[in-house]
Amino acid sequence: MPSPFLGELLGTTVLIILGDGVVAGALLARSKGENAGWIAITAGWAFAVIAGIFTATATGSADAHLNPAVTLAAAIGTGDWHKVWIYIPAQMLGAFLGAAIVWLHYLPHWAATESQALKLACFCTGPAIRDARGNWISEIIATFVLIFVINAIISKAVGTPNAIPAGVAPYLIGMLVWGVGLSLGGTTGYAINPARDLGPRLAHAVLPIAGKGASDWGYAIIPVVGPLVGAALAALAVRMVGM
Amino acid sequence: MPSPFLGELLGTTVLIILGDGVVAGALLARSKGENAGWIAITAGWAFAVIAGIFTATATGSADAHLNPAVTLAAAIGTGDWHKVWIYIPAQMLGAFLGAAIVWLHYLPHWAATESQALKLACFCTGPAIRDARGNWISEIIATFVLIFVINAIISKAVGTPNAIPAGVAPYLIGMLVWGVGLSLGGTTGYAINPARDLGPRLAHAVLPIAGKGASDWGYAIIPVVGPLVGAALAALAVRMVGM
Amino acid sequence: MPSPFLGELLGTTVLIILGDGVVAGALLARSKGENAGWIAITAGWAFAVIAGIFTATATGSADAHLNPAVTLAAAIGTGDWHKVWIYIPAQMLGAFLGAAIVWLHYLPHWAATESQALKLACFCTGPAIRDARGNWISEIIATFVLIFVINAIISKAVGTPNAIPAGVAPYLIGMLVWGVGLSLGGTTGYAINPARDLGPRLAHAVLPIAGKGASDWGYAIIPVVGPLVGAALAALAVRMVGM
Amino acid sequence: MPSPFLGELLGTTVLIILGDGVVAGALLARSKGENAGWIAITAGWAFAVIAGIFTATATGSADAHLNPAVTLAAAIGTGDWHKVWIYIPAQMLGAFLGAAIVWLHYLPHWAATESQALKLACFCTGPAIRDARGNWISEIIATFVLIFVINAIISKAVGTPNAIPAGVAPYLIGMLVWGVGLSLGGTTGYAINPARDLGPRLAHAVLPIAGKGASDWGYAIIPVVGPLVGAALAALAVRMVGM
Repeated sequence: MPSPFLGELLGTTVLIILGDGVVAGALLARSKGENAGWIAITAGWAFAVIAGIFTATATGSADAHLNPAVTLAAAIGTGDWHKVWIYIPAQMLGAFLGAAIVWLHYLPHWAATESQALKLACFCTGPAIRDARGNWISEIIATFVLIFVINAIISKAVGTPNAIPAGVAPYLIGMLVWGVGLSLGGTTGYAINPARDLGPRLAHAVLPIAGKGASDWGYAIIPVVGPLVGAALAALAVRMVGM
Repeated sequence: MPSPFLGELLGTTVLIILGDGVVAGALLARSKGENAGWIAITAGWAFAVIAGIFTATATGSADAHLNPAVTLAAAIGTGDWHKVWIYIPAQMLGAFLGAAIVWLHYLPHWAATESQALKLACFCTGPAIRDARGNWISEIIATFVLIFVINAIISKAVGTPNAIPAGVAPYLIGMLVWGVGLSLGGTTGYAINPARDLGPRLAHAVLPIAGKGASDWGYAIIPVVGPLVGAALAALAVRMVGM
Repeated sequence: MPSPFLGELLGTTVLIILGDGVVAGALLARSKGENAGWIAITAGWAFAVIAGIFTATATGSADAHLNPAVTLAAAIGTGDWHKVWIYIPAQMLGAFLGAAIVWLHYLPHWAATESQALKLACFCTGPAIRDARGNWISEIIATFVLIFVINAIISKAVGTPNAIPAGVAPYLIGMLVWGVGLSLGGTTGYAINPARDLGPRLAHAVLPIAGKGASDWGYAIIPVVGPLVGAALAALAVRMVGM
Repeated sequence: MPSPFLGELLGTTVLIILGDGVVAGALLARSKGENAGWIAITAGWAFAVIAGIFTATATGSADAHLNPAVTLAAAIGTGDWHKVWIYIPAQMLGAFLGAAIVWLHYLPHWAATESQALKLACFCTGPAIRDARGNWISEIIATFVLIFVINAIISKAVGTPNAIPAGVAPYLIGMLVWGVGLSLGGTTGYAINPARDLGPRLAHAVLPIAGKGASDWGYAIIPVVGPLVGAALAALAVRMVGM
């Protein structure tokens, strides 16, 4: 039963359970992690990526993309597009499921939290300063760095000569995501992954979250299309430098 | 003299010395770590898991479960139940011993600390919002994620082809526990381990802790049975996805 | 197209995007990471180093120096100076580019931030206490420790017997930089790298940063020459102890 | 010129530069790391241990003890005492030198800092609550855990079958020290190493530190003898469990 679809689905589910979970833990009222701060949020997303990669690999997706932007960059890089139509729906579905599980996990905390903005932030990203030009630039740059450096890491990964040992590459990618979050996340909350933003935003829209507000669909295009643009540019850059 | 019983016993003792220890260090009055916060507490538990696994492995338990929920999931997964009756008593005894050592280690700080709730929190978990349904759900989800992703990690561990090198898998499991704590611990304090909660709660009840209050036995069933339910469900899921 | 020049250039670009980026994220007004603190800043620089090393290696610089002080020490150690004239210009250019990208990434935040000192700090270092003697000493000591311990780590790196596995040495060097930052960065902000300071200072001087102040050129000599002195002394010490 | 004496000397020097350095960075007035907190201090000591181990190994001490308590435990474990007389003087000298370098590194900050207690804390440990019985117990327990778990880790280290890869064991020991600090350091500041406390205390006594107070020699016996007792007990326990 392991399959690439299942692997991307479950890997992304775990990614969002732990990723959206750390935001909920740091923002929701009366959580034991309330106000744990930026270092905790960025650390949580890093561990979420590592756990998601191992989950995807163990359940059928040797690629463990968990991210349509990564899948797009791989398609551009290899010229093989057939995975796109399998991986991206799985990632979207997984992200929706993960967000629903976070809602369930923090069940008594939604009513306890007054701010509708904080509740939305447990699902999807939003800009620190609402400035379309700046927000587009941020998502493009952050995703470019993510994709470019992932390629640099896996250029030495399992199966190549002088290979990084099994299990170490996922950890290094997690540390990269910690770094991207700390360094480039301050502006838009680093979607850097269309599924990570759109799936949970949809979950926010449809779930019966106590006292929720609007899902800010007006912003939704930037964290979906921005990462895809950044990924496409990174894929071209990777080819250009002959990596 | 190394034996599976001894390994599980000593590994769990070390787990609780460092795990309950970091809570005491962050909560007890006049500790140098007072108010070190959620990132410190969750980090401390991660290092506690790593230290516990190495201790268990080196003293006779190649499995290094340290957790009745992990032992239950393994029994369901393999169909071999004979370890259950050896490991779980060892884990319970180890957890009790570890908590007693934490009490001894922080000896002058118990009288210095006024809050009975903080003193209890150095031993066992308690809910951020007392809501039975929500608390059950939290412990079940958090333990499900823990067990499912541990299985994903060790599906590539030592002894299999493309194996994670020795020493790296325990570290990755520690990072997973850091992630589960940061992301899913905000609601109930993430017992995710019946021994981790019950052993120290018993220690709290019987040790002569200066100015202690009640041991909150009314809550004790959730952090014991919740993790077992989550583990059983995870074991079924692991089998279902053919991991 | 991969070449040592390109590798040092791109590696240093990534180093500064993530390194200056984490400072901007922690200091600029209305950033989601505002006030994330010293642990976040030093962590961000550590992940920046790891990402920069993988980038440099994958794009043509097997050395991945990213730092003229490291290049100088290597030249002294090996007696081979021809790399100096290739690597150092690449590092300087990369650092300038990286700083320009950080400016672009945080575009709406420059006008939102009042303090000119904080804006300068997102580019280059400055002393906690302006004391030339003390600042020289600090940069020399911190760089000496960096270079000496890097040599200790890579004395066992890839390709030697009992080698550190591929991918692990860059991570260990990142952890060393985290340590140097935490332990020795409090005085001058640990340039420990002439390119890291001079490239971004130049970028600060020429870019149209909203509401920027002076670029503090009076201090600029210390973070450029200090690290070179520390590196030269470390290279001599490495030879002296027969490492 | 590499020799076991030199290796222990230089490794301990680096240990104390980075270890005492992080305390100075977090406590001294006007440091950029001022108030970085317990997570930063304990992290800094962890990276100090890793850097010290690599330094010691690369300069002649394959053991990389850096700590008389570790040397004592090894002597008890192996029955071979001749290293004791080489390693411990080297460690003491290295710790003194490291503290002197920290003094030099933070030169302008000593006069800027009013509190004599904080200045002393940059050199050696002191109790959170001055209680001889409790302080003895703390140093004994914390050192016991340190030594016991180090033995558990290195029982699988380089050179044995199923070996931890080169470079990974020092990192794991660093993470153990982070854990011991977070979990057991709150009471006495975790000397767990006689050289780490006595060498810098001597340096505090003899160096011309601006506005320094007394060196608290009345407490000095606990962080020297406590760790030795804990190490001896751990060595016996290691033998008893047949590790």
